[in-house]
Amino acid sequence: MEAFAVPDVPEIRAGDDLAAIVEERVDLRPDDVVVVASTVVSKAEGRTADLDAFPAGPRAVEIADRLESATGDEKDPRFAQAVLEESTELLMDEPFLLTETRFGHVNVNAGIDRSNVPGADLLLLPKRPSESAARIREGLASEAPIVVTDTCGRPFRHGQRGVAIGWAGMPASRDWRGEADRDGHELEVTVQSVVDELAAAANLIAGEGDGGTPIVVIRDWSFGDHEGSDELFRSVESDFVRQALRKWDYED
Amino acid sequence: MEAFAVPDVPEIRAGDDLAAIVEERVDLRPDDVVVVASTVVSKAEGRTADLDAFPAGPRAVEIADRLESATGDEKDPRFAQAVLEESTELLMDEPFLLTETRFGHVNVNAGIDRSNVPGADLLLLPKRPSESAARIREGLASEAPIVVTDTCGRPFRHGQRGVAIGWAGMPASRDWRGEADRDGHELEVTVQSVVDELAAAANLIAGEGDGGTPIVVIRDWSFGDHEGSDELFRSVESDFVRQALRKWDYED
Ligand SMILES: Nc1nc2c(ncn2[C@@H]2O[C@H](COP(=O)(O)OP(=O)(O)O)[C@@H](O)[C@H]2O)c(=O)[nH]1
Ligand SMILES: Nc1nc2c(ncn2[C@@H]2O[C@H](COP(=O)(O)OP(=O)(O)O)[C@@H](O)[C@H]2O)c(=O)[nH]1
Ligand SMILES: [Mn+2]
Ligand SMILES: [Mn+2]
Ligand SMILES: [Mn+2]
Ligand SMILES: [Mn+2]
Repeated sequence: MEAFAVPDVPEIRAGDDLAAIVEERVDLRPDDVVVVASTVVSKAEGRTADLDAFPAGPRAVEIADRLESATGDEKDPRFAQAVLEESTELLMDEPFLLTETRFGHVNVNAGIDRSNVPGADLLLLPKRPSESAARIREGLASEAPIVVTDTCGRPFRHGQRGVAIGWAGMPASRDWRGEADRDGHELEVTVQSVVDELAAAANLIAGEGDGGTPIVVIRDWSFGDHEGSDELFRSVESDFVRQALRKWDYED
Repeated sequence: MEAFAVPDVPEIRAGDDLAAIVEERVDLRPDDVVVVASTVVSKAEGRTADLDAFPAGPRAVEIADRLESATGDEKDPRFAQAVLEESTELLMDEPFLLTETRFGHVNVNAGIDRSNVPGADLLLLPKRPSESAARIREGLASEAPIVVTDTCGRPFRHGQRGVAIGWAGMPASRDWRGEADRDGHELEVTVQSVVDELAAAANLIAGEGDGGTPIVVIRDWSFGDHEGSDELFRSVESDFVRQALRKWDYED
């Protein structure tokens, strides 16, 4: 397996054609996977916004006030409003905002970025990243699979890592159920989220800074002969951590 | 960046020298990272065990009984005993066992495997995976960095992916604090857990089945000119999800 950044990607603006940008720079092969940081997908889709576009309602004002007293940092209620508008559920409102985005991804601040966004206050995540992935894929002659990524934190472990938030042209996961281990027994790991592993691999190269390498091609990797699954985001019914968070208060 | 499996790794037995096995098969370069699945580290360290080695105490019997009624599946109290002995904290005891291992990693069943373990009932995780990594590294002429991995699940997202449980010769994370984004602003993502991303990349190749590819070399990737951090496992004080789980009951 090989992974390399698409060279010389320009600063992306609303309306830019990411598929064309890739095709002009790389001779894609049909079994390549193209991994695209959501930051440039969002920019291409015009998902920049200014704080003024989110006049704060009473709930956002209350949330920002509580965050301010919990953290001691100044909090803009318009930012809280933006997070609420991007979310279907607020999982934690103290000491930071953890929400479920409209497409099911759980992330701090609904994944709204304030870095790498020239000329605007905020960059919202793509509205439906798997649809973004499908659109980029349609623009490629090779129809290579696309994974759209973001960087985010997680419980239990410090730090952040690349994860998939959208994908097209391949299943999200290898489903190993029914397959055997080296000993002929049935496997314990049943579902391997390869889109998340591809996102993590690409993030090693993309980085988080001013590298300018938002698009990474994964070459000579293959999904292999496995069943596939497209379930990636847990619903609250199957997620005990979300159930526990619903009952939890920072104050306690 | 390139990633390839070390070819023709045999079935690993207690006492095997993993460093020698790698050196005999690959011309390592000093900037390679060698990513080793914990399964073979454990086998080399003789961490196989039979259930009979864990006579169940009253707590394990109670836990197994509750798990049996919660799930409807038969549960061996000796397995619960093994999980308890490998753990410093039981975060969830229903509908599955989520614990903190002695080295700080949170995982279901303390990471004890029942697949890919010929000739024994159980395979325990290495006792101190970062020390295992350091030992393997000392055996390498190149002193290439080592990452020891496992596959595990996570809140919020279905499925499992490779993570690092030990490392040597490199920091766990790139610390981006103080660095600037493309716009000259300070970065939002501050700590990128590259050992987890290396583990995920390697897992794409290692797989979960009978592939027989537990060791993967990552070539032509570089940590880069960043500060490093070795904090990977959160303590309960900095982990709101763990705090919430402490107050949560499956029955509610
Ligand atoms: N060439 C180019 N690189 C960008 C642009 N925006 C961000 N990047 C790069 O994309 C990579 C990922 O940026 P990041 O802000 O972490 O994106 P996110 O993880 O999707 O939120 C870094 O290498 C950035 O320098 C852009 O418009 N053009
Ligand atoms: N050659 C060889 N491969 C092994 C051995 N044990 C496991 N594997 C392979 O190592 C990879 C990872 O196995 P897995 O059980 O998922 O390990 P874990 O993720 O560390 O728990 C798979 O490709 C297995 O087939 C072994 O003793 N020898
Ligand atoms: Mn982002
Ligand atoms: Mn990022
Ligand atoms: Mn394992
Ligand atoms: Mn595995």
